[in-house]
Amino acid sequence: MSDPRRIGGVLAPVVTPFTADLSPDAERFVRQCRWLLSQNVGLAVFGTNSEANSLSVEERLELLDRLVGAGVDPARLMPGTGCCALPDSVRLTRHAVKLGCAGVLMLPPFYYKGVSDEGLFRSFAEVIERVGEARLRVYLYHIPPVAQVPITLGLVERLLRAYPTQTAGMKDSSGDWENTRAFLDAFAPSGFDVFAGSEPFLLRTMRHGGRGCISATANVHPGPIARLHETWQGADADAQQARLDEIRAVFARFPMIPALKAAIAHWTGDPAWATVRPPLVALAPEQARALVEELGRREFTMPGLAGARPAPLQTRSA
Amino acid sequence: MSDPRRIGGVLAPVVTPFTADLSPDAERFVRQCRWLLSQNVGLAVFGTNSEANSLSVEERLELLDRLVGAGVDPARLMPGTGCCALPDSVRLTRHAVKLGCAGVLMLPPFYYKGVSDEGLFRSFAEVIERVGEARLRVYLYHIPPVAQVPITLGLVERLLRAYPTQTAGMKDSSGDWENTRAFLDAFAPSGFDVFAGSEPFLLRTMRHGGRGCISATANVHPGPIARLHETWQGADADAQQARLDEIRAVFARFPMIPALKAAIAHWTGDPAWATVRPPLVALAPEQARALVEELGRREFTMPGLAGARPAPLQTRSA
Repeated sequence: MSDPRRIGGVLAPVVTPFTADLSPDAERFVRQCRWLLSQNVGLAVFGTNSEANSLSVEERLELLDRLVGAGVDPARLMPGTGCCALPDSVRLTRHAVKLGCAGVLMLPPFYYKGVSDEGLFRSFAEVIERVGEARLRVYLYHIPPVAQVPITLGLVERLLRAYPTQTAGMKDSSGDWENTRAFLDAFAPSGFDVFAGSEPFLLRTMRHGGRGCISATANVHPGPIARLHETWQGADADAQQARLDEIRAVFARFPMIPALKAAIAHWTGDPAWATVRPPLVALAPEQARALVEELGRREFTMPGLAGARPAPLQTRSA
Repeated sequence: MSDPRRIGGVLAPVVTPFTADLSPDAERFVRQCRWLLSQNVGLAVFGTNSEANSLSVEERLELLDRLVGAGVDPARLMPGTGCCALPDSVRLTRHAVKLGCAGVLMLPPFYYKGVSDEGLFRSFAEVIERVGEARLRVYLYHIPPVAQVPITLGLVERLLRAYPTQTAGMKDSSGDWENTRAFLDAFAPSGFDVFAGSEPFLLRTMRHGGRGCISATANVHPGPIARLHETWQGADADAQQARLDEIRAVFARFPMIPALKAAIAHWTGDPAWATVRPPLVALAPEQARALVEELGRREFTMPGLAGARPAPLQTRSA
């Protein structure tokens, strides 16, 4: 059985706003996090959709301090702390624990490909040992399409044996339900918390003993996703899931991170939100327009979003 | 035509020694770099074989300072400075230029896959613009088997047009001669320096107008590789190439980085050299023994290597 004191439900890998000179914008970031919390969505800051690996360690530490300093409850935070370099992962993880974060979402070191489970075990073990905190909760981050370095059943088994307290769960962003189910079958009964990597898998994950989801689109569609998590045993759960899938499918037709930011830029009326760091590229104006139009046709809104005055649709100058 | 003032020849992506607690060992590192220089091999420190992405930015800055502080000529240095995060790449590159390094070897940001040439162009352009130094020389690092993010002909063309002074060359670690030849054909005549990613391609690269090679095995076989570079127009060049290929093939039968370190550990008589950082794993004793035996059968040596007293072959305890 899952430990009810651990973080669960729906979390957003919060998109990171940048200023015109590509610096992280802490003020907008705090505002966005507060809105997500108001929608009953937790904060998996510094995930793939946060462009976290495009941020320096110092920038991540500073943003985390700003969040907690602004009164955001660390019990709602699961920052990403897994880097290629062991000292970076240790430094970020230690700081997250010190601030009282509910857990950390940890990528494997992702530069070398084809590494062994033995090497990955040692990576995670070194971080856990060096941080040396019984209250650390590690969520392993399986995202083979991006990291290319997988979290396997065998690795989780070894970590659970060696660090049963700290090995709390995982996020499965494989996009492969059979993989998620294998982890649920193997480890959920003994209290390992599996989060689906996106909400199209949320209902199935809950029905198979999972803990929730951590999804890109929770950045823009938080309330309805959280509602499905809260009412997944209700009669209308499948209908809710279908509606979520419909909105997700619109975003999935565009490059995800620029599309999330374009939507936020539109519904906040704040075009600066569209800024991404290289190597990502913002949506072209015609793409952003198509996204907003498709969402509008589906009566999509972002209720209560700070500064939620839609920007006028821009037409490209000839 | 290539600019003769720019760095050329054979460079080693210098393996990084670690102490027992996995800290970088600056003293051993300086000693190894001096030996490589004595073999007429330049120093592409912080490459893939250096486990550079397993080091924090601070660790790399410190090692670079130690090298230059120890009197190593920065004109023989081409440190790797390409990171996932723009501020990290800028910081490392700026420091390398400040120290007077001959150039920097720059990975593309490698977390996100399938990014556009536009996004990669902006990544490199931002680094070049922010460093803002006419004496910066950037060597683009194409290593698709590891980084998974390629350097394309189109990207090089754009960078050469926008930054003709700073865009100095590339290292091609694709392992695909057709790719290397395409870059040589397209850009070498106008002075863009192509380095092969390993010495099996050295002779072909030189015959097609390339500048040299940057190779893992230059860590352990530096003198003979440098000699082929110096005498590639001689009558025995093909014979030299065949001999190099034979030694390379031995290393290629093992995980490369642990094998390089195992060989150095053996020929220096200093077992601490075998240490790698996770997620890599050192060779098992029987693998290390097999490597040394195979090399011994081919009369491989590492002449002049600091502390070059071979350790006794260890037999595994039963």
